[in-house]
Amino acid sequence: MKTYFECIPCFMQQALKAGKMTAKDNRQLKTILDETGCLVKTFSMQSTPAEYGAEVYKLIRKITGVEDPYKEIKQQSIKEAKELYPELKNIVKNSENRLLTAVRIAIAGNIIDFGVNKKFNLKEDVQRILTQNFAVLDFDTFNDAVQKAKTILYIGDNAGESVFDKLLIEEMSDKKVIYAVREIPVINDAVYEDAVESELDEVAEIISSGAKAPGTILNQCNENFLNIFNTADLVISKGQGNYEGLSDVKRPLFFLLKAKCSVIARDLKINENDIILKGINIS
Amino acid sequence: MKTYFECIPCFMQQALKAGKMTAKDNRQLKTILDETGCLVKTFSMQSTPAEYGAEVYKLIRKITGVEDPYKEIKQQSIKEAKELYPELKNIVKNSENRLLTAVRIAIAGNIIDFGVNKKFNLKEDVQRILTQNFAVLDFDTFNDAVQKAKTILYIGDNAGESVFDKLLIEEMSDKKVIYAVREIPVINDAVYEDAVESELDEVAEIISSGAKAPGTILNQCNENFLNIFNTADLVISKGQGNYEGLSDVKRPLFFLLKAKCSVIARDLKINENDIILKGINIS
Repeated sequence: MKTYFECIPCFMQQALKAGKMTAKDNRQLKTILDETGCLVKTFSMQSTPAEYGAEVYKLIRKITGVEDPYKEIKQQSIKEAKELYPELKNIVKNSENRLLTAVRIAIAGNIIDFGVNKKFNLKEDVQRILTQNFAVLDFDTFNDAVQKAKTILYIGDNAGESVFDKLLIEEMSDKKVIYAVREIPVINDAVYEDAVESELDEVAEIISSGAKAPGTILNQCNENFLNIFNTADLVISKGQGNYEGLSDVKRPLFFLLKAKCSVIARDLKINENDIILKGINIS
Repeated sequence: MKTYFECIPCFMQQALKAGKMTAKDNRQLKTILDETGCLVKTFSMQSTPAEYGAEVYKLIRKITGVEDPYKEIKQQSIKEAKELYPELKNIVKNSENRLLTAVRIAIAGNIIDFGVNKKFNLKEDVQRILTQNFAVLDFDTFNDAVQKAKTILYIGDNAGESVFDKLLIEEMSDKKVIYAVREIPVINDAVYEDAVESELDEVAEIISSGAKAPGTILNQCNENFLNIFNTADLVISKGQGNYEGLSDVKRPLFFLLKAKCSVIARDLKINENDIILKGINIS
């Protein structure tokens, strides 16, 4: 997905938000906004928003020296999600269609996002998504693909959401699941230690995709990830950032996300706040 | 009022909005965003947001060659407001306190603003504001000041809102009222011809303040305006942009506005969407 013009003010907003959390004083915060402003000119609208985001968060790291501004927030998100886990597990167990319910829960976890400028209430939003209609629901093909798959690559998104992903991966327990995280902290995206903290190591092999962006940009990913990406029987891509990087790839793939901004919604031809399980290139 | 950090993404948003209306193609729109981005670095947080805005709209004019992107929208706003005029006039006539009701109506007109990133429904919003409580209501001192004044400077804000201002000025019909507008089009702010189209020439002398910003920046105003500003018995300042430029002046002044963004609300120590009639430096 290419960058939309609407993404540009949004990056400035994200720089402000992350800058407020990390800058040691107003002068440093102004420098962050100055540099984010200068970045606009260097950037092509042909790139993905995730690549743009990578540059914004890189300059914040450079200016502030803070490697992981969202560290505490991520730990808190994981803690809150883990507190919900037993209740959510029961919902899956007692549901008519366990896989579909676990898909819903995994999408519900996608609301944990501090990049998009929205507030959320984890428990309330989860309840709503559990009964929300899907704007796109390719469940039959997804179910087929899961049943047939021996290896599944699951590309994670945010920390906290990772706990919800675990519930879906548990419904694929007879498969070899590889859970991919970002190489370095960007926004509240999960890195290796967040995935371990979410206890994903109990159900999957955790790898880094090599991504330094808030999404999966294939030409920035490491060889190990690319090998798995190219050979896995099924690839599941969680969230907006991964969609941004992978929406135009040629291989079969399932996107699981909630459209949290108007740009993603427009690109997917759905409405903001819609949820989807969408397969592409499925034969 | 100084610029808040939150104003910076907002300017990028405004550049996008005005750019979409005026740019001849995506390349020109990108140039507008590039240049707006570069502008951040050149700007001090000690300046007012209105000064910042002036630079943004100046570069859009320079890049696109379009002098008045909001021309049609302004004409439409004035037309709609004029259609409401007879009804609003009746409300004033039948009210217990005509001056206060006219103040409310003048504030209601302040919702006509295409700079701030909000949608509005003129008729509905007017109805609501007619019964909304004021967060600050210095009505007694305002009433006193009006009764004692011989000359009143009324600093207008947006086109369309200007028609609502007329209703308030009509309640001061025994005074000499000077209605000040911007020198050149910025956002949907009223210029001379908009004030005439709003029939303000029937009740006031219309002058240009010399302002090329979406607000009154005194050091950018012309001599005639400054003379009147310094000598008028009463000065009424409408809207956010004028507040931004005049909030720190030393002379007595009444601000009439609806807080349409969180930054103005914070500066005034009120909540977003609150309405105020606030006097400063009143002895």
